Amino acid sequence: MLNILFSAKPAAWDEYQAPLNAAFAECGLHASLSRDHAPGDVDYIIFAPNGPVTDFTPYTKTKAVMGLWAGVETVVDNATLTQPLCRLVDESLTDGMIEWVTGHTLRHHLGMDLHITNQDGVWRDGIIPPVAANRPVTILGIGALGAACGQALHQLGFPVTGWSRSAKDIPNIRCLHGDEGLEEALKDAQIVILLLPQTPQTMNIINAETIARMARGGFVINPGRGPLIDDRALLEALDSGQLAHATLDVFRTEPLPPDHPFWAHPKVTVMPHIASTTRAETAARVIAENITRGQAGKPLHYLVDRGLAY
Amino acid sequence: MLNILFSAKPAAWDEYQAPLNAAFAECGLHASLSRDHAPGDVDYIIFAPNGPVTDFTPYTKTKAVMGLWAGVETVVDNATLTQPLCRLVDESLTDGMIEWVTGHTLRHHLGMDLHITNQDGVWRDGIIPPVAANRPVTILGIGALGAACGQALHQLGFPVTGWSRSAKDIPNIRCLHGDEGLEEALKDAQIVILLLPQTPQTMNIINAETIARMARGGFVINPGRGPLIDDRALLEALDSGQLAHATLDVFRTEPLPPDHPFWAHPKVTVMPHIASTTRAETAARVIAENITRGQAGKPLHYLVDRGLAY
Repeated sequence: MLNILFSAKPAAWDEYQAPLNAAFAECGLHASLSRDHAPGDVDYIIFAPNGPVTDFTPYTKTKAVMGLWAGVETVVDNATLTQPLCRLVDESLTDGMIEWVTGHTLRHHLGMDLHITNQDGVWRDGIIPPVAANRPVTILGIGALGAACGQALHQLGFPVTGWSRSAKDIPNIRCLHGDEGLEEALKDAQIVILLLPQTPQTMNIINAETIARMARGGFVINPGRGPLIDDRALLEALDSGQLAHATLDVFRTEPLPPDHPFWAHPKVTVMPHIASTTRAETAARVIAENITRGQAGKPLHYLVDRGLAY
Repeated sequence: MLNILFSAKPAAWDEYQAPLNAAFAECGLHASLSRDHAPGDVDYIIFAPNGPVTDFTPYTKTKAVMGLWAGVETVVDNATLTQPLCRLVDESLTDGMIEWVTGHTLRHHLGMDLHITNQDGVWRDGIIPPVAANRPVTILGIGALGAACGQALHQLGFPVTGWSRSAKDIPNIRCLHGDEGLEEALKDAQIVILLLPQTPQTMNIINAETIARMARGGFVINPGRGPLIDDRALLEALDSGQLAHATLDVFRTEPLPPDHPFWAHPKVTVMPHIASTTRAETAARVIAENITRGQAGKPLHYLVDRGLAY
């Protein structure tokens, strides 16, 4: 019998208990899922950064920590965490992100807001967008999510450039990397989508200097992490016209405080961190399958490299 | 030397003259393009329904009428038109329509408007849309445009049903046809997209009875033709909650008069007939290539069947 500790908020327990037990049964795992196992007895921890476990020291027998979230920046530098840590890579999460990114890219490409927010009897047929083939899109961060979004945008005809820290080679995406690659990736980009992990190197990667490299009147879409953007530089670029609009789903503080200038700015759309939401059924299956791998002695999927911090 | 008459509004002449002459030269056609050829000398007419030619009787030598528009309902029942009539099927028009249809389908699927129109400091994270796989979309009209839109929506994960007058078989689309097929196509549809031609049979195809077959709280997107919808029935369904929203790009009268109830209705987005706009360069190439076919004795592309009215 495997002892599996569930360490997340009570609401998550209500949501995940049944799907996890169903997924364990489906995988043939004899598991006791609980929020109250004695630390020394725990084989695996299912973990969200906002749950009760903060000190991993007493979990001496624990083989791995299975994250419930895709982002691990709040736990990765926890010095007590010596056990292997896995991110959650959930297909429905990828699907949801593709839909959100594609939808908001098309929204800005087509200039939808002009019509959605001006239903005043004026027939505004003067602005015809270019076809997607003439609208270069750049994705910063071409991991699993970024690459999948890039494929969807490519299929709609957008020329897609992707940028990552280290070199990648992904079909249908012009892949650039490193500091010089970043300069080239932003050059003339009309829509920039942020899907980078949050690391010391990616903090404020969208700043006055990088925004200036984009095409004038461009768009920034951030479904990644709030600290990727220098908020003040973004607001200045919107005011100067260098950027036409920013759609932001993530922030340094969430929920975004009601007095934050983003809410009132006419060129910012604040979204409540909904670009990609884990659905319990699919997430439970991913976790159960990964524990099954661990028990069979196979390498775990989605292991976090603590040196790279993602 | 071919005499080609250009019969459209003066603004279209300014836009098309150079691209058409360039396309004729590219095809090796020796053509004299003018707005003033004597009727008896004209080999081909490039025609928009709002141009000067309304009586085709004196064009005795004319081999074909090449439409500048995809829709031909305003000319198809002109009794003086005995010459072959070709619709304009332009790839950039198809691309633009795919982008528009995909964008507005995702907009409604993701519930974007809630956020776009409520930037008031309230963090509305309670409404998570299903993934596209759980959002059935139905396209009425699966000709070239409808089928292409269906493929794009399928690639994003939406289950796509298509309906047409006669039986079709298109990959990735559940194809239905005829009166019984229509009932089945609308059953449980959450998003219905109208891309039918305007014919006596398709007039008011969206009416009280057909709307009632859709899933409650559904969406109607009309980039096709205004008369496909019974306007009053649509407004009643929006008021009753049977429909959540309608995004309409085409109307019985265009521009839509400022006092039309669609403008003021909070659940209607009026768009100024921009879903798909012909770009002169690509359209000119299509027309020149078709005239080249005609001169070579090959059957013309995109011939309108006047019996079917499209």
